[in-house]
Amino acid sequence: MAKQFKPAISPTREENYPEWYQQVIKAADLAENSPARGCMVIKPWGWGIWENIQKVLDIKFKETGHENAYFPLFIPKSFIEKEAEHVKGFAKECAVVTHHRLEQNEDGTLSPAGELSEPYIVRPTSETIIGAVYAKWVNSYNDLPILINQWANVVRWEMRPRMFLRTVEFLWQEGHTVHATKEEAIEETEKMLEVYRWFAHEYLAIPVLTGKKSANERFPGAVETYCIEAMMQDGKALQAGTSHFLGQNFSKSSDIKFTDSDGSIKHAWTTSWGVSTRLIGGLIMTHSDDDGLILPPKIAPQHVVILPILRKNVDKQEIYNFCQEVETKLKTKTFDGAPIKVKIDQREHLNAGEKSWGWIKKGIPVRVEIGPRDMEAGSVFVGRRDKGVKEKESLSVDDFVDSIEETLQSIQDNLYKRALELRNSRTVIINSKEEFYAYFKKNTGFVETYWAGTAEEEELIKKHLNVTIRLLTESDDTGECFYTQKKTTTKAIYAKSY
Amino acid sequence: MAKQFKPAISPTREENYPEWYQQVIKAADLAENSPARGCMVIKPWGWGIWENIQKVLDIKFKETGHENAYFPLFIPKSFIEKEAEHVKGFAKECAVVTHHRLEQNEDGTLSPAGELSEPYIVRPTSETIIGAVYAKWVNSYNDLPILINQWANVVRWEMRPRMFLRTVEFLWQEGHTVHATKEEAIEETEKMLEVYRWFAHEYLAIPVLTGKKSANERFPGAVETYCIEAMMQDGKALQAGTSHFLGQNFSKSSDIKFTDSDGSIKHAWTTSWGVSTRLIGGLIMTHSDDDGLILPPKIAPQHVVILPILRKNVDKQEIYNFCQEVETKLKTKTFDGAPIKVKIDQREHLNAGEKSWGWIKKGIPVRVEIGPRDMEAGSVFVGRRDKGVKEKESLSVDDFVDSIEETLQSIQDNLYKRALELRNSRTVIINSKEEFYAYFKKNTGFVETYWAGTAEEEELIKKHLNVTIRLLTESDDTGECFYTQKKTTTKAIYAKSY
Repeated sequence: MAKQFKPAISPTREENYPEWYQQVIKAADLAENSPARGCMVIKPWGWGIWENIQKVLDIKFKETGHENAYFPLFIPKSFIEKEAEHVKGFAKECAVVTHHRLEQNEDGTLSPAGELSEPYIVRPTSETIIGAVYAKWVNSYNDLPILINQWANVVRWEMRPRMFLRTVEFLWQEGHTVHATKEEAIEETEKMLEVYRWFAHEYLAIPVLTGKKSANERFPGAVETYCIEAMMQDGKALQAGTSHFLGQNFSKSSDIKFTDSDGSIKHAWTTSWGVSTRLIGGLIMTHSDDDGLILPPKIAPQHVVILPILRKNVDKQEIYNFCQEVETKLKTKTFDGAPIKVKIDQREHLNAGEKSWGWIKKGIPVRVEIGPRDMEAGSVFVGRRDKGVKEKESLSVDDFVDSIEETLQSIQDNLYKRALELRNSRTVIINSKEEFYAYFKKNTGFVETYWAGTAEEEELIKKHLNVTIRLLTESDDTGECFYTQKKTTTKAIYAKSY
Repeated sequence: MAKQFKPAISPTREENYPEWYQQVIKAADLAENSPARGCMVIKPWGWGIWENIQKVLDIKFKETGHENAYFPLFIPKSFIEKEAEHVKGFAKECAVVTHHRLEQNEDGTLSPAGELSEPYIVRPTSETIIGAVYAKWVNSYNDLPILINQWANVVRWEMRPRMFLRTVEFLWQEGHTVHATKEEAIEETEKMLEVYRWFAHEYLAIPVLTGKKSANERFPGAVETYCIEAMMQDGKALQAGTSHFLGQNFSKSSDIKFTDSDGSIKHAWTTSWGVSTRLIGGLIMTHSDDDGLILPPKIAPQHVVILPILRKNVDKQEIYNFCQEVETKLKTKTFDGAPIKVKIDQREHLNAGEKSWGWIKKGIPVRVEIGPRDMEAGSVFVGRRDKGVKEKESLSVDDFVDSIEETLQSIQDNLYKRALELRNSRTVIINSKEEFYAYFKKNTGFVETYWAGTAEEEELIKKHLNVTIRLLTESDDTGECFYTQKKTTTKAIYAKSY
């Protein structure tokens, strides 16, 4: 058990946070880089997390009145050209399909052939193509609202890809809605922001701040971008979800018009909102430690692993049978409305230590070791992933099984509490330019401050310190902008970010 | 109600089957062509069917030991070049990404820029890229089997796209497994074929034949392609799912090797298997009639629609309340293990006839009309989609609610039975060349016959009659090949196909 004296992940967070992140992903078997530059292979354990994210959000989207549909992967180039801001935002990083077949050369290699008259873009986001489709669907106020979501892959040609955080291909959901009035569209934008906040809080155990982006950080083409922002353990911010009020920008560029009840013809109001596989990056960086991944039970692919400890002089089948009894009992219990997800790890080519460490690094919430002595005593040896690796507890099978729901909820709550404490401990209120510069030259963290500067001043601060406004909120009080000394009710959170 | 005297879909199946198919899709609001050539927009009602297909199959894949994962959308060109047969099969119809950004021209339009050193292919299927990844994962026999599935979009540049049947982009699942032995790989191939047969039968209510493809019709690179084949109402065959035994072809081209328990190094054995959104095309063409779509209840996005019939002199809220009571009662009942899916159609800008016809065309299994007289009598007026549009029945609310599970099951069984009867009535046994040619010059249908011809002879028959071997099976008996008069135990089903 010598391994327990040094952490399982090398380097540690302290030693090299970005490299620690990559190593956690590797050790947990979540994903790996693929032969296609910047694209990930999401492995079964990572995919299990994404499946759970999808399941919970999908139910919530439906409860809030949305339906799913599916729109094409390809966007004709001319569609991207339609919205000026959109072009600026996405033209620099998109995959362009120019040919529709490969022709065999004499040496057996293949060359692109069949050039398209108009190139296609692999969707980086779908406002333009969905807008063109909605323009056909919307004729009368009776056709509104349109409340549709799609689960899809998108491509943005990131020059510095990082697994889950920025990948060339990523998976997401994108909601696209159309409304008769501005008020209704804003209400929708805010409603979906609240869904994201709720989900981050309740499922990912990630405390997030909500607010609006500054003009510099807005989605290309949006009137307002609302966001949820989380603090990672290195004090940097992660934008974890966005909800855009698009005003009439896209309805004008796509010509989404309707005849209102009074007979007048109006442009509609649209929104879009999305979260992506980036949430998994946020999950990793919020909770994990130097022994690897830690998963909130509500989003973990599995809640409990049972590790049979075999001994030479004891019949292994007896141990397995006892493990199966425990498994069966656990499965009668529920957590978050569904049976406990439990598995016995019967791999015999690995020893007990290797198996146990494997599951620690995968972040499984609860490990249960069962050896001959436990079996005799009718007990189990239980380790919680949110506690130290050595802090294991012997419990009678019945006590363990009866308290499993409570244990999982306690892990869930504990992870949230820790993350909130970290954020609180690294959030400072700053009111002067000197303090602000001094803070960010030495620290990472969230700076809360009043802000009345211009986009240019914001840009200048970014140039100096590599920090940006993560979000803006309106305060009931008036204060003085730390930079311009102007009176304002607008508060900003400044931070370095992913 | 004059509409009831002519069918809702024009043209009818009799008049023009291919056009009828397009009109059913339109009338049911399943999908539409998109601005990207050959790519569909799958609308919420169509997507709801695909969601149900995914849900049922996903559970079954997991029950049979598979996990989900996700592999990249893009395949480097050199990967496609690795497997010679594969090149022949897919090079002619693939989307090629050659650039990674767009540059703005002086006139504001955009041109492809940032040429890639190696073009990427948008995956037409993923054997080559998954093979390259598996080669890294597989080292020892302890790493086997690998049993993974992915839900994904794929692109094949079809020159004559038809919604659901052949689209440039389509959605599917592709299972990719790796095994230590040939026997195990064949067992997997057959197991997944049986999953597809079961699913087609139990959920889609589509009777399918199972067998192997001839060499001409095999998946490019496979040793054997197993398939399920269904008969559409026009007597043509639809390949509805395939399961490929890939032998060591891909493990050799991708170098998937492992050290076996005896220390020897071996190439692994692989399989792949998939079904796609094409199943929805099969569903439409198997069950629908001249009034539109008919959906088997087990796969329908909704089981029951309640249509309130409003009258000027009756308070509409009273009717709505009564409808809600019926809805609440229905939701306490289950079908296929989940609560009955029911919705009240409260759209008031449409009249009762328009609403009712809308739902008939969408193929909802059960329509319930509730007007003032029904309410007074505590009864409902029920129409089953598998029966004639006018065959409606008045039932007490309790009788209706109590029998809903039975009603839905009866519709499900009835649709299967009808489809089976159709197939039986259009399947003929033919033993001579003359009969064979005479049959296919006048008819469409399945011809069952002994077959011992060559690939060239098969090709010749295809050229003459546009019919192909849909599948081959081994018989216990010996018979004479209709074409070559050779003795053989191999039987073939010949048909025209989609």
